Amino acid sequence: MSTANSQIVGDREAAVIALQARFGAQLTRADALRQQHANTVTGLEEQWPDAVLFAQSRDDVVTAVEILAAHKCPVIPFGIGTSLEGQVNAPRGGVCIDLSRMDAIIEVNQTDMVVRVQPGVTRQQLNEYLRDTGLFFPIDPGANATLGGMAATRASGTNAVRYGTMRDAVMGLEVVLPNAQLIRTGGQAKKSAAGYDLTRLMIGSEGTLGIMTELTIRLHGIPEVIAGGICSFNSIGDACRAVATTIQSGIPVARIELLDTMQVRACNGYSGYDFPETPLLLLEFHGSAQSVDEQSNAFTAIAEAEGAGEFIWSSDTDERNKLWQVRHDAYWAALSLIPGSQGLTTDVCVPLSRLAECVEATQADIEAAGLTAPIVGHVGDGNFHCLPLVPPDQPEMVKTIQEFSKRLSSRAIAMGGTCTGEHGIGQGKMDYLVEEIGEAIGAMRAIKQAFDPDNIFNPDKIFSR
Amino acid sequence: MSTANSQIVGDREAAVIALQARFGAQLTRADALRQQHANTVTGLEEQWPDAVLFAQSRDDVVTAVEILAAHKCPVIPFGIGTSLEGQVNAPRGGVCIDLSRMDAIIEVNQTDMVVRVQPGVTRQQLNEYLRDTGLFFPIDPGANATLGGMAATRASGTNAVRYGTMRDAVMGLEVVLPNAQLIRTGGQAKKSAAGYDLTRLMIGSEGTLGIMTELTIRLHGIPEVIAGGICSFNSIGDACRAVATTIQSGIPVARIELLDTMQVRACNGYSGYDFPETPLLLLEFHGSAQSVDEQSNAFTAIAEAEGAGEFIWSSDTDERNKLWQVRHDAYWAALSLIPGSQGLTTDVCVPLSRLAECVEATQADIEAAGLTAPIVGHVGDGNFHCLPLVPPDQPEMVKTIQEFSKRLSSRAIAMGGTCTGEHGIGQGKMDYLVEEIGEAIGAMRAIKQAFDPDNIFNPDKIFSR
Repeated sequence: MSTANSQIVGDREAAVIALQARFGAQLTRADALRQQHANTVTGLEEQWPDAVLFAQSRDDVVTAVEILAAHKCPVIPFGIGTSLEGQVNAPRGGVCIDLSRMDAIIEVNQTDMVVRVQPGVTRQQLNEYLRDTGLFFPIDPGANATLGGMAATRASGTNAVRYGTMRDAVMGLEVVLPNAQLIRTGGQAKKSAAGYDLTRLMIGSEGTLGIMTELTIRLHGIPEVIAGGICSFNSIGDACRAVATTIQSGIPVARIELLDTMQVRACNGYSGYDFPETPLLLLEFHGSAQSVDEQSNAFTAIAEAEGAGEFIWSSDTDERNKLWQVRHDAYWAALSLIPGSQGLTTDVCVPLSRLAECVEATQADIEAAGLTAPIVGHVGDGNFHCLPLVPPDQPEMVKTIQEFSKRLSSRAIAMGGTCTGEHGIGQGKMDYLVEEIGEAIGAMRAIKQAFDPDNIFNPDKIFSR
Repeated sequence: MSTANSQIVGDREAAVIALQARFGAQLTRADALRQQHANTVTGLEEQWPDAVLFAQSRDDVVTAVEILAAHKCPVIPFGIGTSLEGQVNAPRGGVCIDLSRMDAIIEVNQTDMVVRVQPGVTRQQLNEYLRDTGLFFPIDPGANATLGGMAATRASGTNAVRYGTMRDAVMGLEVVLPNAQLIRTGGQAKKSAAGYDLTRLMIGSEGTLGIMTELTIRLHGIPEVIAGGICSFNSIGDACRAVATTIQSGIPVARIELLDTMQVRACNGYSGYDFPETPLLLLEFHGSAQSVDEQSNAFTAIAEAEGAGEFIWSSDTDERNKLWQVRHDAYWAALSLIPGSQGLTTDVCVPLSRLAECVEATQADIEAAGLTAPIVGHVGDGNFHCLPLVPPDQPEMVKTIQEFSKRLSSRAIAMGGTCTGEHGIGQGKMDYLVEEIGEAIGAMRAIKQAFDPDNIFNPDKIFSR
């Protein structure tokens, strides 16, 4: 626990007292809950809020922000706590507003394929709810995150290559601003040219500009057929060329994931597979039976041209799940390379034309630095994650990994890419952001200042003040 | 010409003199050019700038903005002048920066399917340049607009149902801010979670926040087969239900356009077609031969279920062009209903589930108001345009049309839609914007104030100050 907020004083204390008077048992100062609401997923230091408020309605959020703003007390919005860059930490203390109880699915419009939800709805909850409608919500960042949190961090995941990211999925928002004003952005029409795109501004703003109290989200029809496939390549270069050709050919792959050699080795060891210990691509195709056939055949030809091993695919659900199990195992398999270790994930994204070069240079860097760091990638988007491991008996390895992570980000940025494809900046990547966008940081700060002159909404995230 | 800026005085005069000293013959005060650079497309009053500067480089733009900002002189960016809502008018005078000479196609990256262009490149110029690459730029707003202008107004058009709008097409920008700072937003990676989405903030900001000096744009592979089709329906309701079912079924139509009965009648009269005088849908399918077949067959079944006439389609280029000619004729055919008339287009967009209701209510309104106003629509997105005609001998009809347009916008907004699907707010829809977004206008104003405290970039557009 950070010493910076071990004692709360002055306005923050007054704010918490005022909140308690208004919200009673919805507010807690219990250590266990404060700790649970600070970052606990990654290697960043935990920084507890002074208190946690469980909001139950938009009115709760408005009222809480009114009280907190009056006291200039920091406010940290919280969904379910799966963010990876310290987005829910409370470096200046303040009150965490937990939105997980605002988990109503308000309305599904099947004709428009649109759903309105409260921010605490998780993606799995939504898909379970939609099961009988023929619709689904495709964005899958791995964790069962809340939709509010996913929007706030501009999340994406394996399906983004076909269905886009939260930037594309969110059509409109209801947001409480730092001045406690409730606004609606966007709407239910598929497109609009009506003024500034406040929806997109809020998406990826990580709670620094507003707290989402409702989201209007685009859904998709469940495809008639889903097929999965798997294929080994001799080299990262071959695999990446196959990916680029697949995308250029307009094959609408729903997923195209890379596991590098170290990751395949980890999976073989962890789950008893006997894949060749070379890079592996996993694919998923969505469409009619005919279209899925056509996609699979087209990919087979591309893979063969790159000297790949046999492309095994199936549209049978059990078979497909078996093929894809290796991807689902990846995280735990990676950790098993060093029992008891902690993984510190990275998240660069580069243009497809630079992907092979970036992955290969990163593998060489991993080797030179003496790291154990398997790689998995949402390679259709040029996005990949290394998972450098901190052995339990070598905590000093964190520093080596931080230096590696910095080099990796710089490498991706130099290739026209980004330090974060989908995890966001949070506390962990503020320096990389400056390196990546240069002078544009001034424009971001100007927006923050305009919306939140007292810097109360998730302070010291994205950029420090 | 507006009297408001018939004389320029004080700082504006000093600004123009300073610009002239720096740019010489690149600057003009000639009436003919000033007039040409004010709005001339629609019914809005022309408001001339004091002078026009032909920028030839980003440095020109930076230098000009430095000089103009120092004098607090209005700046109006100009592409090719095809905007429809007075976006290039100069209600406070000032200097128009014409970007049409910045028309270099800087770099095409075929692997990444990305192009970097200067803002004055037009969409047709880009597609001609790309002809031998197998790539194309799909967004087609009708006019041969510049890419900078299209980004600034968040343009879209007939292909948006499949390929998205400028919001989706633009990956990154180079922008000169009102403080003359040059920033880069976005990049070449397919996705990013790095801070606020400044790219999307600039898209649709209509020159009020920045002047684009370079755009990075996503391209698409030219489809193997393009097929066109045409089909008559008994009613708007039937046609709209067919559209909704087509979209829900996940058929990736590239275009799906509606002509209402009055528009079909106009086209029959203008070009000698003999279409049934009932609503007509035009479609275009992109894909492999097999996929286009599958799409056409699926649509045929949907159209039949809605009682449509025969669906005639062809993948032969000449045949397809012939089928689609009726759509290309639509604007001129509409005007021919009243020879010598002027059309004042509207631009609402509603959720698909409300489309039939909105079109039918609008037709009833047109009839009750005694207007001649054919309807065409990018109906896959729920977007449609009425073209109410002002007869040459009835200029007073403008007022009737303005009242109709206001009712139409209110109708669309009440249905969860927007007053503008693709034309933007400009001068013409400021009141509708307030009606549509309510309190959120305050957030937009706060951003404007933060970027442009002296209100020099395209003042009195989107919102008046």
